[in-house]
Formats: sequence, C-alpha cells, structure tokens
Amino acid sequence: MEAEKLRRIVAASGADALFLEQDFLRRYVTGFYSTDGYVVADQSGCTFFADPRYFEAASAQLAGSFVRVEPGAFDAAVARLQGYKTLGVPFPFISRAACARLEERGFALADCMPALREAMKVKTADELEKIARACDIAEEGLLATLPRLKEGMTEREAAAVLEYEMRMRGADGTSFETIVAFGAGSSVPHHETGDTALKLGDVVLIDYGCKVEGYCSDCTRTFLFGDDGRHEDFKAHYALVLKAHELVKEMLVSGMTGREADEIARGCFREAGLDKYFTHSLGHGIGLQIHEYPLLSPRGEEVLADGMVFSDEPGLYFEGKYGIRIEDSVCLKDGKAVSFMHKVPRELIIL
Amino acid sequence: MEAEKLRRIVAASGADALFLEQDFLRRYVTGFYSTDGYVVADQSGCTFFADPRYFEAASAQLAGSFVRVEPGAFDAAVARLQGYKTLGVPFPFISRAACARLEERGFALADCMPALREAMKVKTADELEKIARACDIAEEGLLATLPRLKEGMTEREAAAVLEYEMRMRGADGTSFETIVAFGAGSSVPHHETGDTALKLGDVVLIDYGCKVEGYCSDCTRTFLFGDDGRHEDFKAHYALVLKAHELVKEMLVSGMTGREADEIARGCFREAGLDKYFTHSLGHGIGLQIHEYPLLSPRGEEVLADGMVFSDEPGLYFEGKYGIRIEDSVCLKDGKAVSFMHKVPRELIIL
Repeated sequence: MEAEKLRRIVAASGADALFLEQDFLRRYVTGFYSTDGYVVADQSGCTFFADPRYFEAASAQLAGSFVRVEPGAFDAAVARLQGYKTLGVPFPFISRAACARLEERGFALADCMPALREAMKVKTADELEKIARACDIAEEGLLATLPRLKEGMTEREAAAVLEYEMRMRGADGTSFETIVAFGAGSSVPHHETGDTALKLGDVVLIDYGCKVEGYCSDCTRTFLFGDDGRHEDFKAHYALVLKAHELVKEMLVSGMTGREADEIARGCFREAGLDKYFTHSLGHGIGLQIHEYPLLSPRGEEVLADGMVFSDEPGLYFEGKYGIRIEDSVCLKDGKAVSFMHKVPRELIIL
Repeated sequence: MEAEKLRRIVAASGADALFLEQDFLRRYVTGFYSTDGYVVADQSGCTFFADPRYFEAASAQLAGSFVRVEPGAFDAAVARLQGYKTLGVPFPFISRAACARLEERGFALADCMPALREAMKVKTADELEKIARACDIAEEGLLATLPRLKEGMTEREAAAVLEYEMRMRGADGTSFETIVAFGAGSSVPHHETGDTALKLGDVVLIDYGCKVEGYCSDCTRTFLFGDDGRHEDFKAHYALVLKAHELVKEMLVSGMTGREADEIARGCFREAGLDKYFTHSLGHGIGLQIHEYPLLSPRGEEVLADGMVFSDEPGLYFEGKYGIRIEDSVCLKDGKAVSFMHKVPRELIIL
C-alpha cells in the first residue's frame, strides 16, 4: 500500500502505532508474504521485522518501498515500540494470549481493525488485477474439469480434479474448502464434500475459488448431470435464481447499502413466493480473505462504493431435494457492478 | 472423547464450564465437524449448539454419545451458561473480540488450553488410526507423484500433482501449504512453492501432508533429479541427515524430554561439525493441528510419553546451495518410537 494511506490508518486507529502479526494484514500493509513476522507502523514509517529465513527475500522485494526490513522477531518489534502507550491491534484476529503478551509489557491496546477494514474494503488497481487473475484461473479450472465429470465419480474426486486444474494454472491454493455436492447434498448451502458418487440426473453444485498472491476468487455454478426428464421444477427454479443473479448486476449501483442490494434478489424471490428458500445473504466482500466487508445482507447497512469487490450469490434450497446457487465475484466500477467472470456460462448447462 | 476425560479437563481448567467455538476444539470434544457452532461443557455434561444447517447431521452422528445437540448459536449457548462465573476458553485461539463479547455479559475468563493440551498431546487409539490413514495416503500420494516429475515442470505443478493424488485417495485436503523446492530453494526450510522449473541434477525437497477426518500427516523427503556426478557433498550430507533421523528412532524412549530427543539428532550433527547447519528443531507434535505439543527442541522440557505423535525431521541447510530434510510422523508406543511411514524409502532416491 501507499505510505500515506497507512499513515491515515494509523491516525484513524487512535493508537500511537500499529502492531500486526497476522499473515494477511502483514501482506496487506507490506505486500510481502511470510508465515511469520511483525509489522510496526507509526506516523514516521513502517518496519517489517523478518524472521532470519525471510530476511533476504523481504529485503530484496521491499527495496525502494516505504517499508524498512529488519531482522528479528517479537522482542525486536517490541523494542521499537518504546515510549508508545497505545498499540493498534486487530481485535477480531489477535488472540487473548497475544494481547496478554503486549499488556504485560505495559501497552494499552486499541482495535485497529475498523480503520483497516475501511481501507481494505475498497481495492486498489493492483488488488483488482490479482482478484481478476484468481477469477480467471477459477473459471479456466472449472472449464477443464467439467468434461472430466463421469458417472460414479465421487464429490471428493471431482474436487481433486478442479483443485488440480486451478493449481496447474498458477493458483497458490484454494480460497476455501471446495464444495462439490451431488444430488440432494446441493440443498445444504455449506455441504461437506464427501464420498457421494455422481449419478445420471444429479444436480451438481460446485462452490469454489482459488488464491493468487493471497487474493481470493469465489464462484458457484449449478449443473445437471444428464437430463432424465424429471427436472421441470428444477429448471424453473434455476431460471429464477439466474434472474435474481442478473437482476443484481443490472440494478446494483454505488451508493446503495448492502441491505438494498440483498433486497434486489430477495424481492425477486418474494414475488415468486419463494423467498423463504433463500436461506442466506446475497453476498460478502472478497479480498485477502474470502469473507470480508461489505456484507450484502438484510442487515448490511454499509454503503457500497466503487472499488469494492463482493459476491453476487443468490440461491434457493429445497431440503432433501436440491439446491441452486449462481455466484460471480463482482466489482463496483463507475457506479455499476462488473463481473470478474466471463468464461463459464451462467445459463443452465446439462453435462 | 469420553465423558469422564472431558470432566477432568473441565476440572483442571479451574472454570465452571468450557465455552468452545474453535473448529478443531469442537471436533476434538464432540467428534463432529462443522464450520460453525458452540460447545458448552461442565461437570454435568456437554452440549453442542448447532447452526440450523448442521443440526440434522450433528443429531444423527452424535446420537447415543454423551454430547447433547441443540439448535442455536451464540445466544443460545450463553443462555445455557447462566449462573456461571468463570468460563474456560482457549487463550491462544480465542480473539480479543470474542473475549469482549463474553466479558460484556459478566463472565470471567480462564485459559482452558493448558488442560486441553495435556489431554490432546496423548492420542487415543481412534486418533492414532486417523493419523495412520493420513500418513498412508500421504505416502501413496508421493509414490504416485514421483514418476510424474519431469524436467521443466514447475514446483507449483509438482505440488498440484501431489495434492491431486492425495485427494483422489481420500484426503480432505492438505495439512499445511505443500512445500516443493527445486535446487537452491531447498536450502530455505520454509520455501514458498513457486514457478521454478525442474532441471537435471536438481535437489528436490518435498514437505507435505494431508488431513483425514481432521487429523494431519507430515512427511518430508529429499531427492536428486538425476545424478550429474557433482553431488558428492550432497550425498555425504544426505547420509548424515539419514543417520540422525534413524538414530532418533532408535534412541528415543518414553520418559525423555523433548530437549533430550532433539539432542540425539543435534549431537549427531555436532560430531560431524555441522550442527550449525541444523537451523530448526527436531520436531513438533501432530494431531488435529499440524503444530501441536510436545516440542522436540533445545527448549522442550516436556516429558515424552506413550501415545504422543510427533515429527522426526532433522535437516541440514547450506544457504544458496541445497537443503536436506528427512521427516516421518512417528508415535511413541511401548516406550519406543514407531514410524507411521512404511512405503516411501528414506534412503536417497535418484529420480
């Protein structure tokens, strides 16, 4: 990030300095990824205390940036904080034990996450580019997987193929545990991928994503594995979910609240008398974490603005029968929603 | 786990009741996996408060066990705690924000992790069986991967193949980010798998593992991709690392401390004047988490006992040249170390 932006976050946190030891926050502030390390940032600058095994790589990558790199761990970072009274730490992500370690040294703690969250929810061009790559790899991976789905294959095997295809295209890993649901399992929004085998006529729901340089993609598609002619209800419900999904993209504009965005889809289902089958919220922010702000839900009071990235994922779930969800990762640009997904059709595909 | 064991943990924690919201701890106590939920346990019993989407599955799986299943979330769980003063929560794994939510309701908090850790570091027969399956899948996965390593393949592609082969054999996912290092990258103990392409004569270091029902495996092997005749030093160092690895298995007995176990390998390197190249500790406990207790390190004062599972992973790292690590997941049984790994040879393989 830019030095000036970080200074504003420090000021907004109300603390003398930020003290960050969480992977994704270190990465957000410095751009450098490591499994260990500490970031100290105050109005005068930012220092990354790198474990010896990362020192060389961090120094090389961060040369010329506003981030100083020094070798050391917790003690070195704390030594730099002498004279400070209040440290900004992220209350939702710092453990009680880590807080105690700082409080024992006499520091008062303030929650810096509200200030960080404000900054993180609006993405820079660089962040948007990484999310776009993660979305592109996710789409290419799914397109390579679909022809490989065969009768008798298990959900776990399908997930294995999809994850492999994303990995081979440059993904660093999945952005969350891949959900593959065959048949009635699709009616559970957070189905656990298991050993159910694919049968002719099954509904196939795949909710998945990958990471590129820490940034996530999130996508869901629902298919039919062969049409056994007993799917009229499913097809009607699919058309309605797709209508809700596309309506969100058409109607959502910067300046709306998350609640208003959610209502676009929820209202569409309500008109059809089916809103009670839409059992979750419309979407969530996406970035270095798979669930970020803003929230697009009946309780989402945040105002949506250009540069925000979130999911558009309406769904209908009929317990014990089937579920349908159609999800793109989208961005707000020039006041309108723009999808990152361009390759896998949203129209019903019969495999 | 058994009801009596849980009662002992509650008593040892010094709290009136345990309040657990961490995935791996819920799973440890109840045996049921979910991404959300709350466990409340006191001397009279244990209740799992399940999100509606898990209620049916949890009720079915836990029927007949000592765990009651009730629908509900945070508020329902807290309502059950009325009249209690002190809650046991895991200080290293509960966030500051989650603590505040409980303290605002008037509860005092005590750290239950020491008591949980004491219990968790000695595995039951059921836990050992899950770890054994995770180790077996890891070994089978690597054996299927090795013939597929080709010149020009990237580290990321090799990781993709290995993860696919484990997934296809029943793994739920990796137990940590797969490390594949080609050439000089092997000299970095926590190398980040990247786009380096495999060349003839490269050292290949693969540190990886998978999960089965939440339980982890951890394995490292180091290979040569073709022998270009310039590897005399490497081969001598490999033989020494293997000697240290096997010596640990021979000499380690229940009743030793983690420090004494570490010293078996460290002393072996010291005799050869190479201990300064062994830059990490000998091993760590393995279970529902990839890094647990006991610690086998120069600072490991815990006494090793039957039923503990940990890694035996000595290594030597020559910066900018190559690194060698040979790691098995092992268990202490009848006073002796027994490896979970039986399929991938530890002797040097030239691919």
